Amino acid sequence: MRNIKLTLEYDGAEFFGFQKQPHHVTIQEALEKALSKVLNQKTKIAAASGRTDTGVHALEQVVNFKTKSLRKIGEIQKGLNAYLPKQVAVRKVEDVPFDFHSRYSAKSKTYEYLIWNDPIRSPLKASRAWHVREPLNLTQMKKAARFLTGRHNFKAFTASGGSAKEMTRTLKQIQIKKQGNSILFIFEADGFLYHMVRNMVGTLVQVGRGKLMLSEMYKILHSQDRKKAGVTAPAEGLTLIFVTY
Amino acid sequence: MRNIKLTLEYDGAEFFGFQKQPHHVTIQEALEKALSKVLNQKTKIAAASGRTDTGVHALEQVVNFKTKSLRKIGEIQKGLNAYLPKQVAVRKVEDVPFDFHSRYSAKSKTYEYLIWNDPIRSPLKASRAWHVREPLNLTQMKKAARFLTGRHNFKAFTASGGSAKEMTRTLKQIQIKKQGNSILFIFEADGFLYHMVRNMVGTLVQVGRGKLMLSEMYKILHSQDRKKAGVTAPAEGLTLIFVTY
Repeated sequence: MRNIKLTLEYDGAEFFGFQKQPHHVTIQEALEKALSKVLNQKTKIAAASGRTDTGVHALEQVVNFKTKSLRKIGEIQKGLNAYLPKQVAVRKVEDVPFDFHSRYSAKSKTYEYLIWNDPIRSPLKASRAWHVREPLNLTQMKKAARFLTGRHNFKAFTASGGSAKEMTRTLKQIQIKKQGNSILFIFEADGFLYHMVRNMVGTLVQVGRGKLMLSEMYKILHSQDRKKAGVTAPAEGLTLIFVTY
Repeated sequence: MRNIKLTLEYDGAEFFGFQKQPHHVTIQEALEKALSKVLNQKTKIAAASGRTDTGVHALEQVVNFKTKSLRKIGEIQKGLNAYLPKQVAVRKVEDVPFDFHSRYSAKSKTYEYLIWNDPIRSPLKASRAWHVREPLNLTQMKKAARFLTGRHNFKAFTASGGSAKEMTRTLKQIQIKKQGNSILFIFEADGFLYHMVRNMVGTLVQVGRGKLMLSEMYKILHSQDRKKAGVTAPAEGLTLIFVTY
């Protein structure tokens, strides 16, 4: 029995998220279909590093699966890329130790969130960014982000529907960069709760618009009360960049 | 009578190019529909800086139209952006002198062409880049590009179907930059012939793959024979960046 790790890139726009569910096209379903064809036997993935939501993209999502197939790594990759829909590609295939688990072995994950910050919408950015018309104060957002980094219970920034019981995570860093009329957020943590990045971005944008004071960001975090945080930023701006093991 | 200049951004993927034609959705048609609604009178555009092909994008395409309407600039912009499909946005609206003509007044145009140069396709780049699997020799492509810059008859790099009779253009510069696994080409000229950028990119890629020698690039240019040049690079990699007046 082999344990094989796949690194996947996908455009999430036309999928109902990663995780398989009835009556919806998901990335897991597309992947398992392609895997079963390539290995010539019904194959299910063991785990993904995390379940990206409907519309969320990935540059390097990681999944693993167990198989008795003896097909070569290179052939598996070529076969998968031939069978997968054009919105999904396998960037890397590796044999890994049998105890490797895409989710439990992950040390940290990095997400990017992109905002198009201009009064006029941008057709060329629309599928990958949240359009925020009002000017955002970058300095205030950076200050607010400092309250969030570190080890905290992030319950205030998660949504019901997540599977996590323990809500404490270590948010290693938040970078916020202006690139022309875009604002790029980079989040690195040992793990993220359901909707956590999108809720943090929604709340940081409230600070950037001057609708929320810095002290309120601090209070929201420590309230552990979801109702206090800002809106959930839309999925299209979010990309899982990579997972560290 | 006013002469009004519009700067447009669009994602060309779902349009049959800029220019109006029967039985196809074009950017010109979408724009004239929105204009006629906003100005409350049937309005046609006088000209565009050039006609982008099916699938070609624009960051700052320029068009102008004449109107008797007294509506304010800001209201015209807001109205257009409300009526236009989401793949098109008006980034700027300006009153210009009556003799301004988007095409004839243009001094130079700048296009970008993006190549995703990796054995594996990239779902996140697919709609904006040409996927070239074979490694490309950047140094050779840069050397070949030097033959193309300057004032030449570019007949060898145009396709039948263009309206131009005079085929001499001044290609002011070609920049070729590696950005990770992408290669970005920037072309600036006083004007471009039909398919000229895409044919130059197709031919430069032949040089980059080692299929065409430098001396052959020189001969192709001076042959003025279209059959000698390389393939036409696909439309999705091409974006009209801006027009200088």
